[in-house]
Amino acid sequence: MRVLIKNGLVVNADGQLKQDLLIEDGLVKRLASSIEAEQPCEVIDAEGCYVMPGGVDVHTHFNIDVGLARSCDDFFTGTRAAACGGTTTIVDHMGFGPVGCHLRHQFEVYRGYAAYKAVIDYSFHGVIQHVNHGILDEIPMMVDSGISSFKLYLTYQYKLSDDEILQAMRHLQRAGALTTVHPENDAAIAQRRAEFINAGKTAPRYHALSRPLECEAEAIARTINLAQLAGNAPLYIVHLSNALGLEYLRLARRRHQPVWVETCPQYLLLDERCYEREDALNYLLSPPLRNASNNDALWRGIHDGDIDTVATDHCAFSAQQRRQISGGDFSRCPNGLPGVENRLLLLFSHGVMTGRITPERFVALTSANPAKLFGLWPQKGLLAPGADGDVVIIDPQRTTTIRHAMLHDNADYSPYEGFICQGAIRQTLSHGRVIFDNGTFTGIAGQGRFLRRQPFSTAHQAVSGTET
Amino acid sequence: MRVLIKNGLVVNADGQLKQDLLIEDGLVKRLASSIEAEQPCEVIDAEGCYVMPGGVDVHTHFNIDVGLARSCDDFFTGTRAAACGGTTTIVDHMGFGPVGCHLRHQFEVYRGYAAYKAVIDYSFHGVIQHVNHGILDEIPMMVDSGISSFKLYLTYQYKLSDDEILQAMRHLQRAGALTTVHPENDAAIAQRRAEFINAGKTAPRYHALSRPLECEAEAIARTINLAQLAGNAPLYIVHLSNALGLEYLRLARRRHQPVWVETCPQYLLLDERCYEREDALNYLLSPPLRNASNNDALWRGIHDGDIDTVATDHCAFSAQQRRQISGGDFSRCPNGLPGVENRLLLLFSHGVMTGRITPERFVALTSANPAKLFGLWPQKGLLAPGADGDVVIIDPQRTTTIRHAMLHDNADYSPYEGFICQGAIRQTLSHGRVIFDNGTFTGIAGQGRFLRRQPFSTAHQAVSGTET
Amino acid sequence: MRVLIKNGLVVNADGQLKQDLLIEDGLVKRLASSIEAEQPCEVIDAEGCYVMPGGVDVHTHFNIDVGLARSCDDFFTGTRAAACGGTTTIVDHMGFGPVGCHLRHQFEVYRGYAAYKAVIDYSFHGVIQHVNHGILDEIPMMVDSGISSFKLYLTYQYKLSDDEILQAMRHLQRAGALTTVHPENDAAIAQRRAEFINAGKTAPRYHALSRPLECEAEAIARTINLAQLAGNAPLYIVHLSNALGLEYLRLARRRHQPVWVETCPQYLLLDERCYEREDALNYLLSPPLRNASNNDALWRGIHDGDIDTVATDHCAFSAQQRRQISGGDFSRCPNGLPGVENRLLLLFSHGVMTGRITPERFVALTSANPAKLFGLWPQKGLLAPGADGDVVIIDPQRTTTIRHAMLHDNADYSPYEGFICQGAIRQTLSHGRVIFDNGTFTGIAGQGRFLRRQPFSTAHQAVSGTET
Amino acid sequence: MRVLIKNGLVVNADGQLKQDLLIEDGLVKRLASSIEAEQPCEVIDAEGCYVMPGGVDVHTHFNIDVGLARSCDDFFTGTRAAACGGTTTIVDHMGFGPVGCHLRHQFEVYRGYAAYKAVIDYSFHGVIQHVNHGILDEIPMMVDSGISSFKLYLTYQYKLSDDEILQAMRHLQRAGALTTVHPENDAAIAQRRAEFINAGKTAPRYHALSRPLECEAEAIARTINLAQLAGNAPLYIVHLSNALGLEYLRLARRRHQPVWVETCPQYLLLDERCYEREDALNYLLSPPLRNASNNDALWRGIHDGDIDTVATDHCAFSAQQRRQISGGDFSRCPNGLPGVENRLLLLFSHGVMTGRITPERFVALTSANPAKLFGLWPQKGLLAPGADGDVVIIDPQRTTTIRHAMLHDNADYSPYEGFICQGAIRQTLSHGRVIFDNGTFTGIAGQGRFLRRQPFSTAHQAVSGTET
Repeated sequence: MRVLIKNGLVVNADGQLKQDLLIEDGLVKRLASSIEAEQPCEVIDAEGCYVMPGGVDVHTHFNIDVGLARSCDDFFTGTRAAACGGTTTIVDHMGFGPVGCHLRHQFEVYRGYAAYKAVIDYSFHGVIQHVNHGILDEIPMMVDSGISSFKLYLTYQYKLSDDEILQAMRHLQRAGALTTVHPENDAAIAQRRAEFINAGKTAPRYHALSRPLECEAEAIARTINLAQLAGNAPLYIVHLSNALGLEYLRLARRRHQPVWVETCPQYLLLDERCYEREDALNYLLSPPLRNASNNDALWRGIHDGDIDTVATDHCAFSAQQRRQISGGDFSRCPNGLPGVENRLLLLFSHGVMTGRITPERFVALTSANPAKLFGLWPQKGLLAPGADGDVVIIDPQRTTTIRHAMLHDNADYSPYEGFICQGAIRQTLSHGRVIFDNGTFTGIAGQGRFLRRQPFSTAHQAVSGTET
Repeated sequence: MRVLIKNGLVVNADGQLKQDLLIEDGLVKRLASSIEAEQPCEVIDAEGCYVMPGGVDVHTHFNIDVGLARSCDDFFTGTRAAACGGTTTIVDHMGFGPVGCHLRHQFEVYRGYAAYKAVIDYSFHGVIQHVNHGILDEIPMMVDSGISSFKLYLTYQYKLSDDEILQAMRHLQRAGALTTVHPENDAAIAQRRAEFINAGKTAPRYHALSRPLECEAEAIARTINLAQLAGNAPLYIVHLSNALGLEYLRLARRRHQPVWVETCPQYLLLDERCYEREDALNYLLSPPLRNASNNDALWRGIHDGDIDTVATDHCAFSAQQRRQISGGDFSRCPNGLPGVENRLLLLFSHGVMTGRITPERFVALTSANPAKLFGLWPQKGLLAPGADGDVVIIDPQRTTTIRHAMLHDNADYSPYEGFICQGAIRQTLSHGRVIFDNGTFTGIAGQGRFLRRQPFSTAHQAVSGTET
Repeated sequence: MRVLIKNGLVVNADGQLKQDLLIEDGLVKRLASSIEAEQPCEVIDAEGCYVMPGGVDVHTHFNIDVGLARSCDDFFTGTRAAACGGTTTIVDHMGFGPVGCHLRHQFEVYRGYAAYKAVIDYSFHGVIQHVNHGILDEIPMMVDSGISSFKLYLTYQYKLSDDEILQAMRHLQRAGALTTVHPENDAAIAQRRAEFINAGKTAPRYHALSRPLECEAEAIARTINLAQLAGNAPLYIVHLSNALGLEYLRLARRRHQPVWVETCPQYLLLDERCYEREDALNYLLSPPLRNASNNDALWRGIHDGDIDTVATDHCAFSAQQRRQISGGDFSRCPNGLPGVENRLLLLFSHGVMTGRITPERFVALTSANPAKLFGLWPQKGLLAPGADGDVVIIDPQRTTTIRHAMLHDNADYSPYEGFICQGAIRQTLSHGRVIFDNGTFTGIAGQGRFLRRQPFSTAHQAVSGTET
Repeated sequence: MRVLIKNGLVVNADGQLKQDLLIEDGLVKRLASSIEAEQPCEVIDAEGCYVMPGGVDVHTHFNIDVGLARSCDDFFTGTRAAACGGTTTIVDHMGFGPVGCHLRHQFEVYRGYAAYKAVIDYSFHGVIQHVNHGILDEIPMMVDSGISSFKLYLTYQYKLSDDEILQAMRHLQRAGALTTVHPENDAAIAQRRAEFINAGKTAPRYHALSRPLECEAEAIARTINLAQLAGNAPLYIVHLSNALGLEYLRLARRRHQPVWVETCPQYLLLDERCYEREDALNYLLSPPLRNASNNDALWRGIHDGDIDTVATDHCAFSAQQRRQISGGDFSRCPNGLPGVENRLLLLFSHGVMTGRITPERFVALTSANPAKLFGLWPQKGLLAPGADGDVVIIDPQRTTTIRHAMLHDNADYSPYEGFICQGAIRQTLSHGRVIFDNGTFTGIAGQGRFLRRQPFSTAHQAVSGTET
């Protein structure tokens, strides 16, 4: 099977060239200034378009049960939406399992969830719900099985103490796994939530007021230092939403500490004014949206190279679910936003097309860096001979207005409804097959493969961007 | 004559209170939680609105002849537009006079321009076109006459050398005047312009490419250090457009050096993509528009308190003038944007209503800080007993779409055409008289007074804002 | 009783002038360029000398029982040493009382310790050993009694949890008290100590290795953010020893948060190489000495104005005690250094005489700032009519070599043995009486008064210095 | 010819290992944990010592005629001193030639100066005295001849204008040469010097007051931005003396601009108090010594990795010359300090032995980085098979007190007289021959070779250090 993409501007994290790109048997075969098609061959004319590595979204929560509800996207609808947005790989978070359960338990559950459903390639992050000898001993086997990153929570039911964090980080580093952290200070949130609830202040805006940015910033500084104290363990901070946390990360980088950070489109493009809207419930997530000044600061980090990846934290509950379950009370509303389909286009439009970042850095943020950090490079995140034939073709001349009606997830709204984006996702290819074509999903459930990821390595980690 | 503004939220740079405000004989008489109107008295109900000091715009160029053309706004149309945008004081720049002319020469010319025309109060900045004993000796008399700030250019025909800058700064400081500087490196611009022109690259985008941000940043660092070397002379940088210059200013502040900086709405809200538009000529100004990442950085400075004032640099040439004179060649097109009418609303909508800044800081940026820096405080920039009855009333509930058709300047376009702003300017009062009322200009030419400004003093200069 | 100090250079935090200074009845009566002595009057000729407010040392531990041992200085020997070093006020920390004891319990114990013994004026910091309703309710009464600052520990036996810290900070702020914090991450230290002890690594160097700077930095960032979350509670960080913590504090200042920080001479002048000395036990303290690069960074903070105070954390155990109790095992050796007598001269010699800081900033760091922060201003920390006649006279021409034999504490060594200082403490006056005179202690036990301190206020807190 | 260095700790910029090192025929032949000597072989036992690449000093001025005088060290005495201090390569600056002279003219003069004299390997930096077509066209030939770096002066007789700097940088970059800059603002210095001289203020301290740090900082910011405007030309700032300039450089690095910076031991270890000494004339150099706070900041840069190299700017005039020529008048005294022999030991003692930097970073600063930047890597600055057998052996256990009497230059004083250093230079080897042995010079004039340096390349430039 051959596909030839002609006349496009092929962009990798380290450069761009007008080139033709030939994919054969699912792998990139050749790049050259002009390639003639040998028959049989599907030919795609990408004149005037960017041809980029398919997106790698390392933060999704499909099929997750958060206690209050199960999210409305499973591995079929979730990956279908991803595919239609130009993303060809996702790394989903295993949800919390039964109290005390083994790491492998959730791994099996999630492999079951994804098999026969996923449209694109996938892997999972483990979650350290609690720390004991059994769990710590299980880590190396998980890494051998391809699970080379694990998440620690500093808040919610399964929050870990400083002592447990130190232990977990040490074992993860030793086993070749990257520690990822959801950073929010639990004690401060608990006090504030209790105060608001006791005072009957349960409108959506109190969600944000119950977890101010200092909750997040504190936990970031703590985690950075614990990682250093655990023996300079590599660390990945998820869903950064605020400027102060970014400054803490910059100080760590300045000390040459191996830390990386992810943000999400919602923290770049939405702000706390959403909590004044009638449909404010649809914007509840943790950490919450901040004010516009934090948006600005995160864009600076995107520009400077101090933010490494953009993921989505896609965790969809329909507007209907939200209203029914919560009755309008923030403390009873499931948290999380959909968005897996919008990531590439939002960043392309508001990043590349405004001059904030180059196309190269766009690729670094959306596929190359996540692939490097999570053991998928150079199979993913790169268009070079031998790499997977995962491609997204973006047309910078067209304009796209986001409407949920046109999206492919299972939610009933989009937080970006009405956003006008410069650019359009034209085609997505997974292993050389077109799975999205000018508005139409053409993929097949179950064609996505589980990716056994490599252990964490710093070999490819000179990932920060370079912008003037 | 009495005016009573009832039920509004009165905002000064240091706080806000729901208060009634009584103006008598053109001066603020009283503020109290409830004031009953003594007859006769005009009563304005400001329920749900902000009542703020009238705007002070310290950077305009009315009636200026830039060689290629004379700007299309004189002191009547210019101040009329200002008034309709909520601004009640302007400090205009005296344009360049004949080679070798005395400071007083231009002062007289400009007093002539403004008399019988200005609708609101006004003063002027002097310009040091060249440095010699005569000019330096004239400075103290100018300060006595109320001209307590002078501008130095580092580029254009009347650029000064380092040696001249040092001399001028010393004499200005000694005389009680504030040095303001237009910072761009002349040699680099000259080389680049010549290259582009020689290569026939004269489309508008080459204007921006001929003066990259490093031209501006270099000149800012130079000026800061020369001010320090001139004996810690106070310094005010005009129209900051880029992030690197802001970092240089932060370093100076960190050293406790007396430096202040202004930016303009165009550098916060427009970016270099304007130079790709069909009407790109309408966006030529110096320094030019930058990429969106610089916008973000300037908003951070607005938020942090590292930027002190927002002015407009209003210097209007109609789209027709621009096309006719230049024939589309950037090097023959007069530079400058209109905007004196849009300043307050743009900053209110995109600053206050997004949560980037508080209403107090809005007042600091738009009236209190400029009044303090340029010798007009506390007569201007403050609503307190004894201050001038200059007021702007802003309604945060209404929405305004900017259309040039509704503006009051003499240009034929607005660079902000189609911008949707949250908020509306409801009324403007100058000396207690309503000069703008819900869309209608109600002022009178010649009612504006020349303001003899006080010498520069640091007594009130603890002006930087405070935001979380 | 009159004392006239003639011909000196009188230095306050905001300026210096060659002036005569008259003290009458223990209070500053007058400052003037020339004052003639009315009889009877003691006259001190301070020609060529600095005449400064007596030192205010807000961090001492006299008579403290740390479990392993009781420190070797009580309120007589401790304050005698302070006096001989130019310090005229100390604020000592009440030691830990019995489990569950009331705040007043320790207050009474400490008033008993100090009465009849103290040579100079004194007050105490409270300590919040644990948090419950009783303790929280007791705080306002303590503040009324003059105890307007309280310390929280994040490590050691009485460490508080995040939840308790938030509660304590809220109550302290409400009562008008300043929260001071000993910041070190307990979990990380505990793990490391256990590892070293289990491995038989008990030499003094393992003390430092068991509490790396990240332990301290983490706790600083945490405390800063908790203070903000507790409602922007004012915060004072004690004994800063490292550069990263200073950067965290700078970020908080940049956000205009009310935080202040103290360092000590040992963190400016000694470094971790002391742990390689034969007498390494004599240098054990917490936080431990760091490497020279941290010294440099702290000096930069002293210079920049980002460090507010220099105190001593004087907590003396004799070399003999240390050896006997510990047998050379760091985990059994009492922690703390003597130094109350050396603070002023060390900072004068290595700060003022090297050009790092001005004499004015020296006064700010050693007396004015601590007095302002801890409710003693303007009675202490200022030489102005009405202030207490507490004075130190420093001769910058003389050289002093520090030898423990010449010091006045009760230890048997000095960590600064052999240091050559440019300058000498000539006289110290307390309430107008000479209590130290050219090497000889002339004070009287019991003449020091308990100082009922004012509640914390930001009225005088524009304390940061200004240096180029 | 074989030399075997046994039992030492071999340190390169990227690591250290206890290894034996075999040199054969002047080149490093082998490194291994244990090497047996094949006869004949000289064996050096380096037990307990560091074995490092010989120093590369890229900033010396031997035999220079500065108008007022010719320096007292020629290429024999200068390189002899270098060798005795552990330095095995120098890159000297060609002095100013006759007005209008060709680049090759000075090249020939300097080759003549060095031939038959130099004890160690050497090369030269070119100097761009003026800019015209002839000079610009000559650059590529010079680079071909091995001169791949050129210096521009912003002050002194041959200062260049912004326009000339831009031209020079463009041509240098194109030709593969690195631009190095002496940054001081000429206009400000000229005004200040004239004022002091006119007022009869000619004591040495006025030298420093005539060129405050802002003169240097301004020129650094200017040069950085001009380099960027010249097309991102690579830039090397020499002899950094102040903290503000370092901050400017940090900002450029943060923007990923190719800039590097050198400091010298005198700016780390001496300060402006030297200008109060009786022998103050002996400390005149440009830029001058600053206050201790700048020392601290430079040490921070050394630690952080923001300073890349330590060179000496050795430019020796004897104390006698200085007194006779100047009569004590700073404006008539030749500028410059000796020090080529002290560089390694001073940095080792005050850097490595205090814990400020690691031994690896010491190597980076003193040999690896300069070799990489100036086209000498990997022949110099590295101990690996095939590299030149240039080695310095440092004994960290011994103590050295610097006395001029023991130095090998031709001056009659040392600015570091009496400094006590932890460590001692034990042996220096050049091409495998011992040229300094425990206090005795054993080299031979004329054995040093001219090094034809490679063009500038960024291939090896990931040179900044990494410290916690």
